[in-house]
Amino acid sequence: MINARAIEGLPEVHPGDDLAALLAEHTEAGQVVVIAHKVVSKAEGRIRALAGIEPGAEAEALAAKLGKDPRHVQAVLDESLEIVRDERVLICRTRHGFVCANAGVDQSNAPADSVILLPADPDASARALRAALPGRPAVVIADSFGRAWRLGQCDVAIGIAGLAPVDDWHGRVDRSGRRLHATAIAIADEAAAAADLARAGKDAGEPVVIVSGLERFVTDEDGPGAAALVRGRDDDLFL
Amino acid sequence: MINARAIEGLPEVHPGDDLAALLAEHTEAGQVVVIAHKVVSKAEGRIRALAGIEPGAEAEALAAKLGKDPRHVQAVLDESLEIVRDERVLICRTRHGFVCANAGVDQSNAPADSVILLPADPDASARALRAALPGRPAVVIADSFGRAWRLGQCDVAIGIAGLAPVDDWHGRVDRSGRRLHATAIAIADEAAAAADLARAGKDAGEPVVIVSGLERFVTDEDGPGAAALVRGRDDDLFL
Repeated sequence: MINARAIEGLPEVHPGDDLAALLAEHTEAGQVVVIAHKVVSKAEGRIRALAGIEPGAEAEALAAKLGKDPRHVQAVLDESLEIVRDERVLICRTRHGFVCANAGVDQSNAPADSVILLPADPDASARALRAALPGRPAVVIADSFGRAWRLGQCDVAIGIAGLAPVDDWHGRVDRSGRRLHATAIAIADEAAAAADLARAGKDAGEPVVIVSGLERFVTDEDGPGAAALVRGRDDDLFL
Repeated sequence: MINARAIEGLPEVHPGDDLAALLAEHTEAGQVVVIAHKVVSKAEGRIRALAGIEPGAEAEALAAKLGKDPRHVQAVLDESLEIVRDERVLICRTRHGFVCANAGVDQSNAPADSVILLPADPDASARALRAALPGRPAVVIADSFGRAWRLGQCDVAIGIAGLAPVDDWHGRVDRSGRRLHATAIAIADEAAAAADLARAGKDAGEPVVIVSGLERFVTDEDGPGAAALVRGRDDDLFL
Protein backbone atom coordinates (compact mmCIF):
# COMPACT_ATOMS: atom_id res chain seq x y z
CA MET A 1 0.00 0.00 0.00
CA ILE A 2 1.27 3.44 -0.82
CA ASN A 3 -0.06 6.83 0.08
CA ALA A 4 0.80 10.21 -1.46
CA ARG A 5 -0.22 13.42 0.25
CA ALA A 6 0.56 16.99 -0.76
CA ILE A 7 1.77 19.38 1.94
CA GLU A 8 -0.70 22.23 2.11
CA GLY A 9 -0.03 25.85 2.84
CA LEU A 10 3.62 26.15 1.85
CA PRO A 11 4.59 29.74 1.09
CA GLU A 12 5.90 30.93 -2.27
CA VAL A 13 9.63 30.16 -2.42
CA HIS A 14 12.26 32.77 -3.29
CA PRO A 15 16.02 32.64 -3.95
CA GLY A 16 17.91 31.91 -0.76
CA ASP A 17 14.95 30.39 1.09
CA ASP A 18 15.73 27.41 3.33
CA LEU A 19 13.61 24.57 1.95
CA ALA A 20 14.60 22.19 4.72
CA ALA A 21 13.30 24.63 7.32
CA LEU A 22 9.99 24.94 5.43
CA LEU A 23 9.56 21.17 5.29
CA ALA A 24 11.06 20.12 8.61
CA GLU A 25 7.81 19.72 10.50
CA HIS A 26 6.35 17.49 7.77
CA THR A 27 8.95 14.76 7.27
CA GLU A 28 9.98 11.58 9.01
CA ALA A 29 12.21 8.57 8.41
CA GLY A 30 11.22 6.09 5.72
CA GLN A 31 9.14 8.53 3.69
CA VAL A 32 9.87 9.76 0.20
CA VAL A 33 9.62 13.53 -0.13
CA VAL A 34 8.86 14.40 -3.76
CA ILE A 35 9.44 18.04 -4.58
CA ALA A 36 8.72 19.84 -7.83
CA HIS A 37 12.01 21.05 -9.28
CA LYS A 38 10.75 24.62 -9.64
CA VAL A 39 10.77 25.11 -5.91
CA VAL A 40 14.33 23.83 -5.67
CA SER A 41 15.40 25.92 -8.65
CA LYS A 42 13.84 29.04 -7.14
CA ALA A 43 15.46 28.47 -3.75
CA GLU A 44 18.81 27.98 -5.50
CA GLY A 45 18.37 31.11 -7.60
CA ARG A 46 18.33 29.16 -10.88
CA ILE A 47 16.37 31.97 -12.52
CA ARG A 48 17.49 34.10 -15.44
CA ALA A 49 16.04 37.47 -16.33
CA LEU A 50 15.35 37.55 -20.06
CA ALA A 51 16.62 41.14 -20.21
CA GLY A 52 20.11 39.94 -19.34
CA ILE A 53 20.34 37.36 -22.13
CA GLU A 54 22.04 38.18 -25.44
CA PRO A 55 20.86 35.66 -28.03
CA GLY A 56 23.42 34.31 -30.48
CA ALA A 57 22.92 33.41 -34.13
CA GLU A 58 21.73 29.86 -33.44
CA ALA A 59 19.18 31.08 -30.91
CA GLU A 60 17.91 33.73 -33.33
CA ALA A 61 17.52 31.17 -36.12
CA LEU A 62 15.73 28.63 -33.92
CA ALA A 63 13.51 31.32 -32.41
CA ALA A 64 12.47 32.50 -35.85
CA LYS A 65 11.73 28.95 -36.95
CA LEU A 66 9.68 28.14 -33.86
CA GLY A 67 8.09 31.54 -33.19
CA LYS A 68 9.75 31.85 -29.80
CA ASP A 69 11.59 34.53 -27.85
CA PRO A 70 15.27 34.29 -28.92
CA ARG A 71 16.40 35.08 -25.38
CA HIS A 72 14.41 32.10 -24.08
CA VAL A 73 15.94 29.94 -26.81
CA GLN A 74 19.42 31.12 -25.83
CA ALA A 75 18.71 30.07 -22.24
CA VAL A 76 17.66 26.66 -23.55
CA LEU A 77 20.85 26.33 -25.61
CA ASP A 78 22.94 27.32 -22.59
CA GLU A 79 21.44 24.38 -20.65
CA SER A 80 21.78 21.86 -23.49
CA LEU A 81 24.45 19.44 -24.58
CA GLU A 82 22.58 18.72 -27.79
CA ILE A 83 19.38 19.65 -29.62
CA VAL A 84 17.69 16.33 -30.35
CA ARG A 85 14.87 17.81 -32.40
CA ASP A 86 13.76 21.29 -33.35
CA GLU A 87 10.36 20.78 -34.95
CA ARG A 88 7.71 22.86 -33.16
CA VAL A 89 9.35 22.26 -29.77
CA LEU A 90 13.02 22.06 -28.86
CA ILE A 91 13.77 18.59 -27.57
CA CYS A 92 17.13 18.82 -25.83
CA ARG A 93 19.65 16.69 -24.08
CA THR A 94 20.45 18.69 -20.97
CA ARG A 95 23.88 18.98 -19.39
CA HIS A 96 22.72 16.32 -16.92
CA GLY A 97 21.90 13.96 -19.81
CA PHE A 98 18.11 14.18 -19.54
CA VAL A 99 16.13 14.47 -22.76
CA CYS A 100 13.19 16.84 -22.46
CA ALA A 101 11.44 19.83 -23.99
CA ASN A 102 13.35 23.12 -23.80
CA ALA A 103 16.04 21.58 -21.58
CA GLY A 104 13.60 22.12 -18.73
CA VAL A 105 13.80 25.92 -19.12
CA ASP A 106 10.31 27.21 -18.44
CA GLN A 107 8.41 30.44 -18.02
CA SER A 108 5.33 29.11 -16.24
CA ASN A 109 5.24 29.89 -12.54
CA ALA A 110 8.40 31.99 -13.08
CA PRO A 111 8.86 35.60 -11.99
CA ALA A 112 7.85 38.07 -14.70
CA ASP A 113 10.19 38.33 -17.71
CA SER A 114 12.37 35.53 -16.48
CA VAL A 115 12.84 31.79 -16.96
CA ILE A 116 13.46 29.02 -14.45
CA LEU A 117 16.22 26.52 -15.14
CA LEU A 118 16.63 22.99 -13.80
CA PRO A 119 18.90 22.78 -10.76
CA ALA A 120 22.55 22.65 -11.82
CA ASP A 121 23.06 19.33 -10.03
CA PRO A 122 19.68 17.94 -8.96
CA ASP A 123 21.19 14.87 -7.26
CA ALA A 124 23.37 17.15 -5.13
CA SER A 125 20.31 19.29 -4.35
CA ALA A 126 18.42 16.17 -3.26
CA ARG A 127 21.30 14.99 -1.09
CA ALA A 128 21.64 18.36 0.60
CA LEU A 129 17.93 18.57 1.32
CA ARG A 130 17.87 15.01 2.64
CA ALA A 131 20.76 15.67 5.01
CA ALA A 132 18.93 18.66 6.46
CA LEU A 133 15.51 17.03 6.94
CA PRO A 134 14.40 15.36 10.20
CA GLY A 135 14.49 11.57 9.83
CA ARG A 136 16.55 11.72 6.61
CA PRO A 137 13.63 10.77 4.37
CA ALA A 138 14.44 9.95 0.77
CA VAL A 139 14.21 13.00 -1.50
CA VAL A 140 13.11 13.01 -5.13
CA ILE A 141 13.20 16.17 -7.24
CA ALA A 142 10.65 15.86 -10.02
CA ASP A 143 9.86 17.46 -13.34
CA SER A 144 7.19 16.76 -15.97
CA PHE A 145 8.70 15.24 -19.09
CA GLY A 146 7.05 14.40 -22.38
CA ARG A 147 7.62 10.95 -23.76
CA ALA A 148 8.43 9.50 -27.14
CA TRP A 149 5.41 7.81 -28.72
CA ARG A 150 2.94 8.63 -25.96
CA LEU A 151 0.95 11.83 -25.54
CA GLY A 152 0.94 13.68 -22.26
CA GLN A 153 3.64 14.26 -19.69
CA CYS A 154 4.55 12.21 -16.65
CA ASP A 155 6.53 13.42 -13.70
CA VAL A 156 9.94 11.78 -13.46
CA ALA A 157 12.84 11.96 -11.03
CA ILE A 158 15.61 14.35 -12.02
CA GLY A 159 17.30 14.27 -8.61
CA ILE A 160 17.32 11.45 -6.06
CA ALA A 161 18.84 10.87 -2.64
CA GLY A 162 18.18 7.80 -0.52
CA LEU A 163 15.84 5.97 -2.89
CA ALA A 164 16.74 3.14 -5.25
CA PRO A 165 16.39 4.70 -8.73
CA VAL A 166 15.63 1.25 -10.16
CA ASP A 167 14.52 -2.02 -8.57
CA ASP A 168 16.46 -4.48 -10.69
CA TRP A 169 14.96 -7.91 -11.21
CA HIS A 170 17.60 -9.15 -13.66
CA GLY A 171 18.43 -12.72 -12.76
CA ARG A 172 15.49 -13.18 -10.42
CA VAL A 173 12.75 -15.64 -11.27
CA ASP A 174 9.04 -15.36 -11.94
CA ARG A 175 6.40 -17.39 -10.10
CA SER A 176 6.99 -20.39 -12.36
CA GLY A 177 10.73 -20.29 -11.64
CA ARG A 178 11.48 -18.87 -15.10
CA ARG A 179 14.19 -16.23 -15.16
CA LEU A 180 12.99 -12.66 -15.68
CA HIS A 181 15.17 -11.19 -18.37
CA ALA A 182 14.66 -7.49 -18.38
CA THR A 183 12.62 -6.20 -15.54
CA ALA A 184 14.06 -3.15 -13.86
CA ILE A 185 11.34 -1.06 -12.31
CA ALA A 186 11.97 2.69 -12.31
CA ILE A 187 10.90 3.16 -8.69
CA ALA A 188 11.86 6.82 -8.39
CA ASP A 189 10.08 7.78 -11.61
CA GLU A 190 6.97 5.91 -10.49
CA ALA A 191 7.15 7.71 -7.14
CA ALA A 192 7.35 11.05 -8.95
CA ALA A 193 4.31 10.07 -11.02
CA ALA A 194 2.33 9.00 -7.97
CA ALA A 195 3.20 12.28 -6.24
CA ASP A 196 2.02 14.28 -9.24
CA LEU A 197 -1.42 12.68 -8.95
CA ALA A 198 -1.63 13.82 -5.33
CA ARG A 199 -1.37 17.48 -6.30
CA ALA A 200 -4.58 19.31 -6.90
CA GLY A 201 -3.17 20.74 -10.11
CA LYS A 202 -0.19 22.47 -11.63
CA ASP A 203 -1.43 25.82 -10.37
CA ALA A 204 -2.40 24.73 -6.87
CA GLY A 205 0.85 25.67 -5.21
CA GLU A 206 1.40 22.21 -3.75
CA PRO A 207 4.92 21.46 -4.91
CA VAL A 208 5.82 18.98 -2.17
CA VAL A 209 4.25 15.55 -1.73
CA ILE A 210 5.02 12.97 0.95
CA VAL A 211 4.89 9.38 -0.29
CA SER A 212 4.72 6.63 2.30
CA GLY A 213 4.75 2.88 1.77
CA LEU A 214 8.07 2.76 -0.06
CA GLU A 215 10.20 2.12 3.02
CA ARG A 216 11.69 -1.01 1.43
CA PHE A 217 13.30 1.13 -1.27
CA VAL A 218 14.61 3.85 1.04
CA THR A 219 18.34 3.37 1.60
CA ASP A 220 20.70 4.57 4.25
CA GLU A 221 23.18 5.65 1.58
CA ASP A 222 22.15 8.43 -0.77
CA GLY A 223 22.85 6.10 -3.70
CA PRO A 224 23.63 6.83 -7.35
CA GLY A 225 20.87 9.39 -7.86
CA ALA A 226 18.93 10.18 -10.99
CA ALA A 227 22.18 10.19 -12.93
CA ALA A 228 21.82 6.39 -12.89
CA LEU A 229 18.61 6.69 -14.94
CA VAL A 230 20.27 8.33 -17.92
CA ARG A 231 20.69 5.97 -20.84
CA GLY A 232 23.85 6.67 -22.77
CA ARG A 233 23.25 7.41 -26.44
CA ASP A 234 24.91 4.17 -27.49
CA ASP A 235 22.84 2.20 -25.02
CA ASP A 236 19.53 3.65 -26.10
CA LEU A 237 17.33 0.86 -27.35
CA PHE A 238 14.77 3.25 -28.71
CA LEU A 239 16.80 5.54 -30.94
CA MET B 1 -4.20 12.58 -1.41
CA ILE B 2 -4.09 9.30 -3.25
CA ASN B 3 -3.90 5.77 -1.98
CA ALA B 4 -2.96 2.61 -3.89
CA ARG B 5 -3.61 -0.79 -2.39
CA ALA B 6 -3.06 -4.22 -3.93
CA ILE B 7 -5.84 -6.77 -3.62
CA GLU B 8 -4.45 -9.75 -1.78
CA GLY B 9 -5.25 -13.38 -2.25
CA LEU B 10 -6.51 -13.39 -5.84
CA PRO B 11 -6.29 -16.85 -7.41
CA GLU B 12 -4.23 -17.65 -10.51
CA VAL B 13 -6.29 -16.67 -13.55
CA HIS B 14 -6.99 -19.06 -16.45
CA PRO B 15 -8.62 -18.67 -19.87
CA GLY B 16 -12.35 -18.14 -19.54
CA ASP B 17 -12.22 -16.95 -15.92
CA ASP B 18 -14.64 -14.18 -15.00
CA LEU B 19 -12.42 -11.33 -13.77
CA ALA B 20 -15.37 -9.17 -12.77
CA ALA B 21 -16.62 -11.93 -10.47
CA LEU B 22 -13.18 -12.23 -8.88
CA LEU B 23 -12.99 -8.49 -8.24
CA ALA B 24 -16.61 -7.67 -7.47
CA GLU B 25 -16.30 -7.63 -3.70
CA HIS B 26 -13.34 -5.23 -3.85
CA THR B 27 -14.57 -2.33 -6.00
CA GLU B 28 -16.74 0.71 -5.55
CA ALA B 29 -17.68 3.88 -7.42
CA GLY B 30 -15.02 6.55 -7.90
CA GLN B 31 -12.06 4.21 -7.60
CA VAL B 32 -9.57 3.35 -10.30
CA VAL B 33 -8.96 -0.38 -10.65
CA VAL B 34 -5.52 -0.92 -12.17
CA ILE B 35 -4.99 -4.43 -13.47
CA ALA B 36 -1.85 -5.96 -14.92
CA HIS B 37 -2.51 -6.85 -18.53
CA LYS B 38 -1.32 -10.43 -18.06
CA VAL B 39 -4.35 -11.27 -15.99
CA VAL B 40 -6.66 -9.83 -18.63
CA SER B 41 -4.75 -11.58 -21.41
CA LYS B 42 -4.92 -14.89 -19.58
CA ALA B 43 -8.65 -14.57 -18.91
CA GLU B 44 -9.18 -13.75 -22.59
CA GLY B 45 -7.06 -16.69 -23.73
CA ARG B 46 -4.46 -14.44 -25.39
CA ILE B 47 -1.86 -17.18 -24.97
CA ARG B 48 -0.02 -18.95 -27.77
CA ALA B 49 1.71 -22.29 -27.42
CA LEU B 50 5.17 -22.05 -28.99
CA ALA B 51 4.72 -25.55 -30.45
CA GLY B 52 1.94 -24.28 -32.70
CA ILE B 53 3.95 -21.42 -34.23
CA GLU B 54 5.71 -21.84 -37.58
CA PRO B 55 8.40 -19.13 -37.85
CA GLY B 56 8.84 -17.44 -41.22
CA ALA B 57 12.07 -16.24 -42.79
CA GLU B 58 12.03 -12.81 -41.09
CA ALA B 59 11.49 -14.41 -37.68
CA GLU B 60 14.32 -16.88 -38.29
CA ALA B 61 16.70 -14.08 -39.30
CA LEU B 62 15.82 -11.85 -36.34
CA ALA B 63 15.98 -14.79 -33.94
CA ALA B 64 19.46 -15.69 -35.18
CA LYS B 65 20.61 -12.09 -34.85
CA LEU B 66 19.22 -11.70 -31.32
CA GLY B 67 19.76 -15.22 -29.99
CA LYS B 68 16.06 -15.77 -29.43
CA ASP B 69 13.54 -18.52 -30.08
CA PRO B 70 12.28 -18.00 -33.67
CA ARG B 71 8.78 -19.05 -32.66
CA HIS B 72 8.72 -16.32 -30.01
CA VAL B 73 9.96 -13.83 -32.59
CA GLN B 74 7.22 -14.91 -34.98
CA ALA B 75 4.64 -14.25 -32.26
CA VAL B 76 6.15 -10.78 -31.82
CA LEU B 77 5.98 -10.09 -35.56
CA ASP B 78 2.36 -11.24 -35.64
CA GLU B 79 1.50 -8.60 -33.02
CA SER B 80 3.51 -5.79 -34.68
CA LEU B 81 2.74 -3.15 -37.25
CA GLU B 82 6.40 -2.24 -37.48
CA ILE B 83 9.78 -3.16 -36.00
CA VAL B 84 11.20 0.14 -34.71
CA ARG B 85 14.55 -1.29 -33.73
CA ASP B 86 16.15 -4.73 -33.70
CA GLU B 87 19.38 -4.25 -31.78
CA ARG B 88 19.54 -6.62 -28.80
CA VAL B 89 15.81 -6.24 -28.14
CA LEU B 90 12.94 -5.95 -30.60
CA ILE B 91 11.29 -2.58 -30.15
CA CYS B 92 7.95 -2.80 -31.92
CA ARG B 93 4.96 -0.71 -32.77
CA THR B 94 2.05 -2.96 -31.85
CA ARG B 95 -1.19 -3.23 -33.78
CA HIS B 96 -2.67 -0.87 -31.16
CA GLY B 97 0.04 1.71 -31.91
CA PHE B 98 2.02 1.26 -28.69
CA VAL B 99 5.81 1.18 -28.94
CA CYS B 100 7.37 -1.36 -26.58
CA ALA B 101 9.76 -4.28 -26.33
CA ASN B 102 8.67 -7.48 -28.10
CA ALA B 103 5.25 -5.99 -28.87
CA GLY B 104 4.33 -6.94 -25.31
CA VAL B 105 4.74 -10.67 -26.07
CA ASP B 106 6.23 -12.20 -22.96
CA GLN B 107 7.16 -15.54 -21.48
CA SER B 108 7.42 -14.54 -17.84
CA ASN B 109 4.47 -15.67 -15.73
CA ALA B 110 3.20 -17.53 -18.81
CA PRO B 111 2.22 -21.21 -18.91
CA ALA B 112 5.15 -23.47 -19.87
CA ASP B 113 6.24 -23.32 -23.52
CA SER B 114 3.84 -20.53 -24.33
CA VAL B 115 3.79 -16.76 -24.63
CA ILE B 116 1.26 -14.21 -23.44
CA LEU B 117 0.10 -11.50 -25.83
CA LEU B 118 -1.38 -8.11 -25.06
CA PRO B 119 -5.19 -8.07 -25.17
CA ALA B 120 -6.43 -7.66 -28.74
CA ASP B 121 -8.33 -4.49 -27.81
CA PRO B 122 -7.35 -3.40 -24.30
CA ASP B 123 -9.75 -0.44 -24.28
CA ALA B 124 -12.63 -2.79 -25.05
CA SER B 125 -11.39 -5.15 -22.32
CA ALA B 126 -11.35 -2.26 -19.87
CA ARG B 127 -14.84 -1.13 -20.87
CA ALA B 128 -16.27 -4.63 -20.50
CA LEU B 129 -14.69 -5.08 -17.09
CA ARG B 130 -15.91 -1.69 -15.93
CA ALA B 131 -19.48 -2.42 -17.01
CA ALA B 132 -19.46 -5.63 -14.99
CA LEU B 133 -17.97 -4.23 -11.76
CA PRO B 134 -20.06 -2.94 -8.84
CA GLY B 135 -20.03 0.86 -8.76
CA ARG B 136 -18.56 1.12 -12.30
CA PRO B 137 -15.08 2.16 -11.09
CA ALA B 138 -12.65 3.35 -13.73
CA VAL B 139 -10.52 0.52 -15.12
CA VAL B 140 -6.92 0.80 -16.29
CA ILE B 141 -5.09 -2.13 -17.86
CA ALA B 142 -1.36 -1.69 -17.33
CA ASP B 143 1.88 -3.00 -18.74
CA SER B 144 5.52 -2.19 -17.99
CA PHE B 145 7.14 -0.30 -20.86
CA GLY B 146 10.74 0.75 -21.31
CA ARG B 147 11.36 4.37 -22.22
CA ALA B 148 13.58 6.16 -24.68
CA TRP B 149 16.52 7.85 -22.93
CA ARG B 150 15.74 6.63 -19.42
CA LEU B 151 16.69 3.32 -17.87
CA GLY B 152 14.11 1.16 -16.17
CA GLN B 153 10.48 0.46 -16.97
CA CYS B 154 7.38 2.27 -15.79
CA ASP B 155 3.89 0.88 -15.85
CA VAL B 156 1.66 2.66 -18.33
CA ALA B 157 -2.01 2.40 -19.32
CA ILE B 158 -2.67 0.24 -22.39
CA GLY B 159 -6.43 0.08 -21.81
CA ILE B 160 -8.65 2.65 -20.10
CA ALA B 161 -12.35 2.98 -19.34
CA GLY B 162 -13.86 5.80 -17.30
CA LEU B 163 -10.67 7.72 -16.57
CA ALA B 164 -9.39 10.80 -18.37
CA PRO B 165 -6.27 9.58 -20.22
CA VAL B 166 -4.84 13.10 -20.07
CA ASP B 167 -5.66 16.15 -17.96
CA ASP B 168 -5.17 18.87 -20.51
CA TRP B 169 -4.04 22.27 -19.27
CA HIS B 170 -3.61 23.86 -22.68
CA GLY B 171 -4.99 27.38 -22.53
CA ARG B 172 -5.27 27.46 -18.73
CA VAL B 173 -3.13 29.85 -16.74
CA ASP B 174 -0.45 29.46 -14.12
CA ARG B 175 -0.54 31.16 -10.73
CA SER B 176 0.81 34.40 -12.21
CA GLY B 177 -1.89 34.43 -14.87
CA ARG B 178 0.56 33.36 -17.57
CA ARG B 179 -0.82 30.89 -20.08
CA LEU B 180 0.46 27.32 -19.74
CA HIS B 181 1.49 26.23 -23.19
CA ALA B 182 2.00 22.53 -23.11
CA THR B 183 0.91 20.85 -19.96
CA ALA B 184 -1.13 17.72 -20.48
CA ILE B 185 -0.73 15.38 -17.59
CA ALA B 186 -0.91 11.69 -18.45
CA ILE B 187 -3.22 10.82 -15.56
CA ALA B 188 -3.84 7.20 -16.53
CA ASP B 189 -0.14 6.47 -17.00
CA GLU B 190 0.64 8.06 -13.65
CA ALA B 191 -2.11 5.96 -12.06
CA ALA B 192 -0.58 2.84 -13.58
CA ALA B 193 2.82 3.86 -12.18
CA ALA B 194 1.40 4.52 -8.72
CA ALA B 195 -0.34 1.14 -8.76
CA ASP B 196 2.89 -0.62 -9.70
CA LEU B 197 4.55 0.76 -6.57
CA ALA B 198 1.78 -0.72 -4.45
CA ARG B 199 2.60 -4.25 -5.57
CA ALA B 200 5.03 -6.17 -3.45
CA GLY B 201 6.92 -7.23 -6.57
CA LYS B 202 6.52 -8.65 -10.04
CA ASP B 203 6.37 -12.16 -8.61
CA ALA B 204 4.00 -11.45 -5.74
CA GLY B 205 0.83 -12.40 -7.54
CA GLU B 206 -0.85 -9.07 -6.84
CA PRO B 207 -1.97 -8.04 -10.29
CA VAL B 208 -4.84 -5.79 -9.23
CA VAL B 209 -4.46 -2.50 -7.37
CA ILE B 210 -7.22 -0.16 -6.21
CA VAL B 211 -6.31 3.54 -6.48
CA SER B 212 -8.47 6.01 -4.61
CA GLY B 213 -8.25 9.80 -4.56
CA LEU B 214 -8.66 10.25 -8.31
CA GLU B 215 -12.44 10.69 -8.24
CA ARG B 216 -12.16 14.03 -10.05
CA PHE B 217 -10.76 12.25 -13.12
CA VAL B 218 -13.29 9.39 -13.12
CA THR B 219 -15.90 10.01 -15.80
CA ASP B 220 -19.38 8.68 -16.33
CA GLU B 221 -18.58 7.98 -20.00
CA ASP B 222 -15.92 5.41 -20.74
CA GLY B 223 -14.05 8.03 -22.76
CA PRO B 224 -11.47 7.71 -25.55
CA GLY B 225 -9.35 5.07 -23.83
CA ALA B 226 -5.62 4.47 -24.10
CA ALA B 227 -5.90 4.81 -27.86
CA ALA B 228 -5.92 8.56 -27.18
CA LEU B 229 -2.39 8.31 -25.76
CA VAL B 230 -0.83 7.05 -28.98
CA ARG B 231 1.20 9.69 -30.76
CA GLY B 232 0.98 9.34 -34.50
CA ARG B 233 4.36 8.89 -36.19
CA ASP B 234 4.12 12.31 -37.82
CA ASP B 235 3.19 13.92 -34.52
CA ASP B 236 6.06 12.43 -32.58
CA LEU B 237 8.20 15.22 -31.22
CA PHE B 238 10.90 12.84 -30.13
CA LEU B 239 11.68 10.86 -33.27
